[in-house]
Amino acid sequence: MWNVTEAALEALAIGAGILGTGGGGNPYIGKLEARQQLRMGRAIQVVSVDEVPDDALITGVGGMGAPIVSNERVHRGDEPLAAMRALERHLGRQFTHVIPGEIGGSNSMTPMVVAAQAGLPVIDGDGMGRAFPELQMDTFTIYGVTPTPGALADPRGHLAIFDKVSDPAAFERYARAVTIQMGGSTGYAFPPMTSEEVRRTTVRDTVTLAIALGEAVLRARAGHVNPVDAALRVTGGQRLFHGQIVDVERRLVGGFARGVLQLDGSGPDAGATLRIDFQNENLIARTGDGEILAVVPDLICIVDQDTAEPVTTEILRYGLRVVVVGIPAPAMLKTPEALPVIGPAAFGYPDVPFHPLPGVYGSGLAKRAAAV
Amino acid sequence: MWNVTEAALEALAIGAGILGTGGGGNPYIGKLEARQQLRMGRAIQVVSVDEVPDDALITGVGGMGAPIVSNERVHRGDEPLAAMRALERHLGRQFTHVIPGEIGGSNSMTPMVVAAQAGLPVIDGDGMGRAFPELQMDTFTIYGVTPTPGALADPRGHLAIFDKVSDPAAFERYARAVTIQMGGSTGYAFPPMTSEEVRRTTVRDTVTLAIALGEAVLRARAGHVNPVDAALRVTGGQRLFHGQIVDVERRLVGGFARGVLQLDGSGPDAGATLRIDFQNENLIARTGDGEILAVVPDLICIVDQDTAEPVTTEILRYGLRVVVVGIPAPAMLKTPEALPVIGPAAFGYPDVPFHPLPGVYGSGLAKRAAAV
Repeated sequence: MWNVTEAALEALAIGAGILGTGGGGNPYIGKLEARQQLRMGRAIQVVSVDEVPDDALITGVGGMGAPIVSNERVHRGDEPLAAMRALERHLGRQFTHVIPGEIGGSNSMTPMVVAAQAGLPVIDGDGMGRAFPELQMDTFTIYGVTPTPGALADPRGHLAIFDKVSDPAAFERYARAVTIQMGGSTGYAFPPMTSEEVRRTTVRDTVTLAIALGEAVLRARAGHVNPVDAALRVTGGQRLFHGQIVDVERRLVGGFARGVLQLDGSGPDAGATLRIDFQNENLIARTGDGEILAVVPDLICIVDQDTAEPVTTEILRYGLRVVVVGIPAPAMLKTPEALPVIGPAAFGYPDVPFHPLPGVYGSGLAKRAAAV
Repeated sequence: MWNVTEAALEALAIGAGILGTGGGGNPYIGKLEARQQLRMGRAIQVVSVDEVPDDALITGVGGMGAPIVSNERVHRGDEPLAAMRALERHLGRQFTHVIPGEIGGSNSMTPMVVAAQAGLPVIDGDGMGRAFPELQMDTFTIYGVTPTPGALADPRGHLAIFDKVSDPAAFERYARAVTIQMGGSTGYAFPPMTSEEVRRTTVRDTVTLAIALGEAVLRARAGHVNPVDAALRVTGGQRLFHGQIVDVERRLVGGFARGVLQLDGSGPDAGATLRIDFQNENLIARTGDGEILAVVPDLICIVDQDTAEPVTTEILRYGLRVVVVGIPAPAMLKTPEALPVIGPAAFGYPDVPFHPLPGVYGSGLAKRAAAV
């Protein structure tokens, strides 16, 4: 068990931004909210999955909605807490821990804020190890946790509670439809889980990984070494492409930012081009020759070539000089159970095969842990 | 307090069909379900508003969705009961009575089925005195009852519970969006009401009116007198137009059946034409000369010229010989509070003035009661 510091929040914002693979929303506002909680004297405790007691009752918490909307909209800041309280009333039981639904993007910060507000520890892990555009695309659901009961809350305090929905795709449709009607972004609390379920279905140590990733980037920036290399060491990733953004085609469809990004190569990739398809998150990176460099669920992260600052789909713009980084997905995302839910076919690319990137997700962290 | 008989169900199906003003869904399936309940030995008790005890807890129950979908879809038959049970669990209290949200169409029967299933009395009244296309278009909401908590259930047992939504139009949007995602039709339970709220906001005696209307039509048919005249006497309505349906333009938009109906006059109206705009329910009847004969919230009912069988928007078709009947709306629908919610402007006709039809809603019933 350890406490999140203000410095750790700064690092988490960067690390979670990179792991957001272009989506997941900007952690910036959540970081300010979490920092404000710390400055009010509240604590944010993180516990490892192994520290969760047998009789724990855990819920995922986060925000739902297209990143573009989330950024333009004023949050009350307590929507996920309100959703969690509604879910507790529905269950007639109180939660003992919260867990990030997705470590990538803003949903890394939301559980920190809820943890501080509610005085509950955050579990070191999440349901994705990255970000995905749909609620049911998490390891909790993939490995058999029932998605409901689950609750949504909007900035006006409106509540929607869903129950007896065993079909995760149906739950996603209902929650998405209500979120759109509620103005485009809501706070959520789901699924309620036992400690057994959390131990069996969580992508572990991802809060630690995101913070370590951000710390490595910040240390490299301060030490005038290349922050992108530092990010690769921690995550087990590789450079896929160096270039400049020359075109972005983007539209908001059914609450998702869908689009295509074009890059012209530079440095080692001068003369080549890259096309990245995204749906909130980056899905497929392929060269102008049609060679596929990386495919979801592997992480395709775009970072500034000099600072390793994450470049999310909502801030993509002409002329940015970036490195496209590929990080191997957590092993739990690459199983026969997981790939139909979060592989290329699930995003409308049935003909794109998934050839996993080499390496191990978070291998730098594993090495660090082994060295301790 | 009185018990609904099988004969009363037959009459209710006809009366509620006419009061459905073209929409509200066909009461036929609900009638079979309610009859089945009676044949299983269950009772359906009706109590007047004045008989409701002070400590009662009442909920509206019914079905939500476009009539076209409802007819094509297999119901489990217990969706509204499942919604009511979910709402009870949410409130931590049990209901003592149910009340029809709308007496027009299939939602006249649904409370009968729930009453039998749950062993609760039905209140003699409703929130519309007719049918309307949206949930919040009822006198409960218009006169200040908070629409939530409210619950929806679908045929798979999926549940959605909404709470803290004081804005009735927002609740309608959320419930409609989820209903569409749930396949187009759901059972609902809302709003929970105290006896004080029911006494203050209910359109009274409409279960009795719908049954009396159906009985009058059936008696006239059996006695070989004109059933349309019988319907007019009970309801206080008048003949607006006689003719034949020559064109129906209909489309399903956001879960509603919207369209325009054209009639060519016959008999006393030979040579004239009539156009009726509808959104599930008939909204405006105007002649080819542009004269407006009747406007929502007054009831525009299309019935077969010989049998007074209600002609709903889903069974409209070329060649039907009909009488268009106008029935003055209940007084509670014509107040300054009500007209902005259920007058022509609420349906997208801001330039159409509401000139109320002469007469009194259900005046035949009032006369009968006075004579008793």
